[in-house]
This record gives sequence, structure tokens and C-alpha cells, in this order.
Amino acid sequence: MIDALTSLKTRLAEICDLRNAGMVLSWDRQVNMPPGGSAARAEQSATLQKITHEMFVANETGRLLDAAVNAVAKRDPDSDDARMVRVAQRDYEKARKLPAELIAETARVTGQAIGIWTLARKNNDWPAFEPWLEKIVDLNRRRADALGYTERIYDALLDQFEPDMTSAQVESVFNVVKPALVELTKGAAAHADKLSNAVLFREYDEGGQLEFAREVIQQFGFDFEQGRQDKSVHPFSTGFSIHDVRITTRVNRNSLSSALFGMLHECGHALYRLGIAPALERTVLASVVSLGLHESQSRLWENLVGRSFAFWKHYFPVLQKRFPEALADQTAETLYCAVNRVSPSFIRVEADEVTYGLHIMFRFELENEMLERKIKIREVPEAWAAKMSTFLGVTPPTVREGALQDIHWVLGSFGYFPTYLLGNLIASQLWEKIETDIPDLAGQIERGEFSGLLGWLRENLHQHGRKFTAQELLQRITGRGLDAAPYLAYLRRKYRDLYGF
Amino acid sequence: MIDALTSLKTRLAEICDLRNAGMVLSWDRQVNMPPGGSAARAEQSATLQKITHEMFVANETGRLLDAAVNAVAKRDPDSDDARMVRVAQRDYEKARKLPAELIAETARVTGQAIGIWTLARKNNDWPAFEPWLEKIVDLNRRRADALGYTERIYDALLDQFEPDMTSAQVESVFNVVKPALVELTKGAAAHADKLSNAVLFREYDEGGQLEFAREVIQQFGFDFEQGRQDKSVHPFSTGFSIHDVRITTRVNRNSLSSALFGMLHECGHALYRLGIAPALERTVLASVVSLGLHESQSRLWENLVGRSFAFWKHYFPVLQKRFPEALADQTAETLYCAVNRVSPSFIRVEADEVTYGLHIMFRFELENEMLERKIKIREVPEAWAAKMSTFLGVTPPTVREGALQDIHWVLGSFGYFPTYLLGNLIASQLWEKIETDIPDLAGQIERGEFSGLLGWLRENLHQHGRKFTAQELLQRITGRGLDAAPYLAYLRRKYRDLYGF
Repeated sequence: MIDALTSLKTRLAEICDLRNAGMVLSWDRQVNMPPGGSAARAEQSATLQKITHEMFVANETGRLLDAAVNAVAKRDPDSDDARMVRVAQRDYEKARKLPAELIAETARVTGQAIGIWTLARKNNDWPAFEPWLEKIVDLNRRRADALGYTERIYDALLDQFEPDMTSAQVESVFNVVKPALVELTKGAAAHADKLSNAVLFREYDEGGQLEFAREVIQQFGFDFEQGRQDKSVHPFSTGFSIHDVRITTRVNRNSLSSALFGMLHECGHALYRLGIAPALERTVLASVVSLGLHESQSRLWENLVGRSFAFWKHYFPVLQKRFPEALADQTAETLYCAVNRVSPSFIRVEADEVTYGLHIMFRFELENEMLERKIKIREVPEAWAAKMSTFLGVTPPTVREGALQDIHWVLGSFGYFPTYLLGNLIASQLWEKIETDIPDLAGQIERGEFSGLLGWLRENLHQHGRKFTAQELLQRITGRGLDAAPYLAYLRRKYRDLYGF
Repeated sequence: MIDALTSLKTRLAEICDLRNAGMVLSWDRQVNMPPGGSAARAEQSATLQKITHEMFVANETGRLLDAAVNAVAKRDPDSDDARMVRVAQRDYEKARKLPAELIAETARVTGQAIGIWTLARKNNDWPAFEPWLEKIVDLNRRRADALGYTERIYDALLDQFEPDMTSAQVESVFNVVKPALVELTKGAAAHADKLSNAVLFREYDEGGQLEFAREVIQQFGFDFEQGRQDKSVHPFSTGFSIHDVRITTRVNRNSLSSALFGMLHECGHALYRLGIAPALERTVLASVVSLGLHESQSRLWENLVGRSFAFWKHYFPVLQKRFPEALADQTAETLYCAVNRVSPSFIRVEADEVTYGLHIMFRFELENEMLERKIKIREVPEAWAAKMSTFLGVTPPTVREGALQDIHWVLGSFGYFPTYLLGNLIASQLWEKIETDIPDLAGQIERGEFSGLLGWLRENLHQHGRKFTAQELLQRITGRGLDAAPYLAYLRRKYRDLYGF
């Protein structure tokens, strides 16, 4: 007779397989699919998600879970099996709340919305996308109602990406961070002539940019035998196995930073996935624990490593060799200054470290207002422009830089944005600890050595997958819960030094 | 209340979605997947196939089918719906015979075997692959037993690719064709100095080859808005929708014909899929009816068009512009001769039109002997070499050109090879009729006009998908069943003329 735990594992492994298959479909849609495939792909994704969901929420899963709970009751509660059962049970309870039809409908609508949004953004055509956003917000309201919440509708959605975190907690953290960001932004503005980033907008051929960025991520530890890098309109990272992780990039021959920092960012995500313990493959634990922690890894490699002076001391000469003409008049220091220039701008993903958080905060407000019907969907472009002006002091010239900017709503994801800023905070909190454990960290970066840093992250964070909660991990690693102080200290130190105020 | 037919269609549409999702996984594996992804992908494909199969063979499908049979009983038996129900019923009865575990096991074994075979072929290492072939042949025996057959085990497997055809029928056709091919091969050998193909092995840069071939297939009618072309080790065509069809190619800078004819061939397959009536999307009819007919389309575009003098009169100047140095001393006529040189060789996919069929015939014999245990798996390389020598007069120098040559067994496909030769026969049989209906056919090709030809194929063949059987289609189009005469007449005319005997 097969024991309960083995039966549960087999069933959950198949569900993992189907989820990963769905991710392949999604990656293909964004990287390869010809336009003609759009309608059929939306149906395929919807069906696959529906079937996966039905299989997961079936009574049979519940029965196996109950039996498995008993089977692991006497084991170490921190063993992989005990943790796996607990995480699966939590997922199961949440998933049971979602009707299969809602999931399929969401997949279908968002599958079609992508084509609409892509065209709408290209044509600056808000009215074309508006009815789709209407549908998507409505689907998210239905989702939140199904999932349930005690205080605010946003809580139910946020919990999907950052489990156990509430809107109120996010707000209280944001309230601490906001004045500091505003102050630093103003300080930088007052000394704007100190730093120039003009060098970034010279001409750099696409092939050379990609090759350089690939060289860097390979040195970070990205293994091209277990991953790929491709081009797509919106950069992202995904994975279908611990040993098959993929990132995408966009390249602009008139911007040196877009491809490079985009790739370092996605590489950070990818290294997290690639570092999960192989023993967790095909279990519910073989994934990242929360998007905040996920983003902490992308931000760590993109900013704390990639925008550090130590990094540029090592890589400037390498980059200069690739672009000897464009960089003839530059030094490691001028490049370091250029990639850290603070300036309020329209596009979130191209924002500097200081103003980035402000992009997130107003989106968080806007999402809350949409979900709580405080504004109508047709008012979104105006509300976006007004908030952007309040937070950042700039107004988007067209809706392409405004409410049509991000892909998240198109993909149906409300409650996702805050995790980006949480990720910045967590990255700094981790970094503080890493600097204690690896005193020579800056020296290693300056020598282009990253195995110490990656090893630390794998040992302390990556390997665990979803075995511990985000809160548990932060506590285990840093000895305390989420704390904005290291982030603010890092920003103040770095930017006061750069701008001299 | 939703009627029985609608319920059936919804269920079958979801099953189509899952099958197409499986095809995306397979395409990705062959085109993009990093080596690390291999094990997980094998599991994903196995699970997806298992789930799809279970859903299709569930009693619920049978119940809906029975109700739908009644619902369409009074309709035109040739209406899409009536035909759809009939085809689905036939598929259902066949699929019910296959245990889900056998399907999952086959997917798992073949998924892993691909990596093994790729390495084994590279290293000329038969022993590494032998145990996998052993497993695969065994799985095919179990499959044949499950499907059932009256005369020979091969019949059950052949029927998967060429429905309603038996090994005995194949044999009787092959017995007609073989002496003619042997006679023509000998004739060509006796006049071997008449034709040279040395020009094909000069140096042609890969990019230029691909661009030229892409230009040709676009003029044939391949729509890059509804398809892609990529590189892969083994060229193939696939599709996930009538509007998302993909082909792959390999390129060799020292061979002009490999990429070009490979791409024309796969384009022929793709045009068939792209021509299926859009109304059939997400139904069991949205596919090609048999592999023989499928192959008739690839062969038609590759050989009857691509190796015709009319084609080269149009495209030689275009090709010469791309490769002015390599082709400086050539003419349309010398190129036409070069691409039609008859010479027994090792590699099936690079064989000329005359010897190609001989490659198929000995594989057909070999597969029969393996399945009927007349030879042991470890004897396969030797048996291969002996048969190749008997049929073609050449002996493979290593197992790479021998028993490790083709991917079909690796993918678990036994009974597939004969459809290639049947395809050649059908292509000629169709061509005879096309030449009657489009008297200016050669003129159109010479002017690079293909819309007449493609329109004829769409109207008469492509649009129907699986609505009619292969036999019905041949009868409807040509007024008779499968007939080797047009093929033999075509070969005799063309090669006696080329070689002057």
C-alpha cells in the first residue's frame, strides 16, 4: 500500500507539472508567439489553469492532505515533508475559495487583454483598453470577495503576492519611507548639476550591450546550461523547473542602462529560483516564498551590486573595451555617477533608486481607490497623472507614460506593486547582515568575485524555497522583522555622498 | 439547457487546448530548452498527456458522444458537425483502448530518451541508446496489443499515422515501387558523370541561406504573422492553432541544399495546417488527416515545385544575387541538375528523390522485424547496415549514419516511416490532377507565382482538416484510390531526361 504522504506528493507533483506547463505557454506568448496565435493561446492558458485548479481543489486532494497531516504529525515540524504538507494545506484552503470559472475567465480575459493593451499602448489609445481594465478590476473584486478579507479589499489581493501582509502594514511602512524619499529627491534636485547621465544615451550597439550584460550575469552565477536569456517587450523572469529558468530583456541602442540593469534585475530573480534545493523539485516548496523576497533578490543584484562603486571599478574597463569610442572620455567614477543620477521620470522600470519608491506608492493608492470604487475606471488616466504630479512632480505627456505604462493590470495582477518597494527594503536589510558576515564584500565585488555573495544567499535564503514564510526567513536571517531603517540609511549615505549635501 | 452537441464541443475544445499546450512544450524542448530542463520537461509532458488522455477517455466524454450522435442523426452526414462527431467517436474508441499509464510512461521514457540519443549520436555510442530503444520497442508492443490488430502487430501502429491502411497494403505498394527505384538508381549510376552537385558544397553563409529560404516560403504563402521559423537539430513542423504554425530548420554553411529544401519541406507541412478552415479551430477536425497526406504536401512543395526546372528558372538569379561569388559560374540549368543528382547516400533526409524511397523501405522492414522479435535490439545496428547495403549499396561508416540516424524511434514513433513514401506517391497523384486544372502551372512557377497552386490545395485539400478520411479525399480529388503510377511516371520522365537514358 502506498502511504498517504507519497500519494499526496505524487498528486501535487502532477499539479506542479501542469502549472509549469502553463508558465511555458506564458513565456512563449511573450517571447515567441506570432500575433495570429493570440486567441488560441488565451484559450489554452485558460483551460490549463482551469484543469490545474480543479485538480488541486478536488476533494481527493483534501482527503490526501488530511491523511498526510497525520502522517507527518510526529516528524520534526521543520522537516521538508512537514513544511510541505503545511504549505500545501494553506494553498489548498485558499484555492478552494476560488471558483474554477473565475480562474478560467480571468485567464481568458487577461490572455486577450495583452494584445489589446500592446496595441493601445502603441497607439496611445486609452479607450481601447478601458473596457478591458473594467473587466479586470471587476474580476479582481470577485477574486477578493471569494478569498475573503476582514479590513480592506486590497488585503485579499496583496496576500496572493505577499502572504500574511496587510494594506495597513504596507501603508505604515510607506509612511515612514515617503518623507525620506521626498527629502532625498529634493536634495538631489537642488544639486542636480553635480551628476550627469548624458553618457548613458550615446550610441551602443545592441549586440555589444547584450554580450556585456550576459558576461556580467554569467559571472554573477547565472548558468546558461540551466537557463536562457531572450528579448521581449516587457522584461521578466520565469522558470519551469529549478534547472530551467529564463529571463528576458529589452535593448535600446540609445540607452546603456535599459538592457544592463534590466538583465541584472532579472538575473537576481533567476538566481533565487536556480538556488532552490533540488530536493524540492516538483513540490509546492519549489518556488519563491513571496514577491517581496523575490524582488529583494533582483534589487540586490541590480542596485546594491550593480550600482555600487565597487562594481564599476571592476566592470568599467570591461565595458570600455566593448565601446571604446562612446566611453573614451569616461572613468569608473563618472559611470558610477551616471547610473545613480536621481531624477523624477515617467517610467517606473527606468527610475533611479530614490524616486522608484514614489512610483510604487501612488500606484498602491490608485489600486486601492479603483478597487474601493473611489474612482471610476475612465477616470484612471487623469487620477494617474494627478498622483504622479503629486508624488514625483512630473506629469505624463501621454497615457503611454501614464495609465497604460505597466503590464501588471493587464495580467490581472492587483496588489502586486507594493512588493517592489518591500523588496528594496528587504534587500537592504539582508545586505546589512551580509556585510557583517562577509567583511570583504566590497573587495570581492571590485575583483569581480561573486561566489561568496551567491553562496551566502543560497545558504541563507534561496535553498529554502517556500519552506519558511517570508517573516520567518527575515527573522532567521536578520534577527528581526521587516525594518525600513537599513534601506533609508543606505539611500541617505549613498546619495548624500554622491550629491554632497 | 445546453444541448448535447454544444457540451461535447466544449469538452473536446478543452481537450484540444491541452493537446496544443503539449505541443508547445515539445516545440520549446526542441528549439529553446536549456539542457538542465530535460528531466522536468519529461515529467511535464508525461503529466499533461496523461491528464489529457484521462479527460478524453472519461465516461463523461462517451455519454456526451452518444447524445451528440443522436443530435446529429438527422443532419447532413457531411456537415462539419456530423463529421466532427464521427471522427471524435472513432478517436474515443481508439483512445479508450490505451491505458493512461502506458501513455504517461511513453511520454516519460521518450522525454528522457531524447537527451540520451542526442549525446549517443554525437559520440557514436550505440550502447548508451540501446536500453532506451529496448524500452521504446517494448512500449510500442504494449501499445499495439492495447490497440489490437488482426494480422500483424505493425498494423496497429501504422494505423495511428495512416488510418485504415495495413502493412500488407504498404507492402504491395512498395513491391511495385521498389524495382522502378532500383532501376532508376542503376540508370543514374551508369551515367553518373552527366550530373555534378559539387556546387552545392561550396561556402554559403548561414544568414544568407536562411534569408533566401525565408523569402521563398513567404512567396509560397507562409505567413510570418501566423507562424515562425527557428533553428533546431532535427527540422520539424508543428502548430498550436490554425493561426500559429511553426517550422524549424538546420543550416550548414557547406551545404546549399540542407536548409533550403528542409525549409521548403517544412513549409509544405505548415501550409497544410495554415489552410485548415478557421471554423474548425479547437475541434478534432482541426488537424491533418493522415501523415501520408501531410507528407504529400511537404514533398509537393519541396520536390515537385522546389526541384523543378521552372522553380530554378525563377530563383536561380535571386540566389545568384545573394551568393555572387559562389555561383558565378552557374546557370539555372546547372543548379537544377545539381539539386537532382541521384546518388545512394547515408542520410535519409538528404537523399535524392529516387533513392529516398529505398531508405524508407528498409526501415519499414527493420521495424517489422524488431516488433515481431525477429531480431534483437542489440542486433539493430548490424541489421541496419546489412539492409542499407542491400537496398542502397552503401554501408554506414558509423552508427551515427546508421541506427542512430533518425529521431522517430526516440520519439516513440514506430509505423511512421512508410507515410513518407506514401506521401511521395500521393503528391504525384495530386500533381497530375493539378496540372489538368491549372494548365499554366509550370508558367506560374517560372514567374514565382504560387497563389494559384496554394489556392487549389486549400480548396481541394487543406480546408477540410480531418473532415474526410485520406481515402475519401484522394477519391474526391483524383477520382481514384492510392495509385503508384503517377509517381513512377514522374520519376521516369524526369530522371531519364536528366540522365539521358
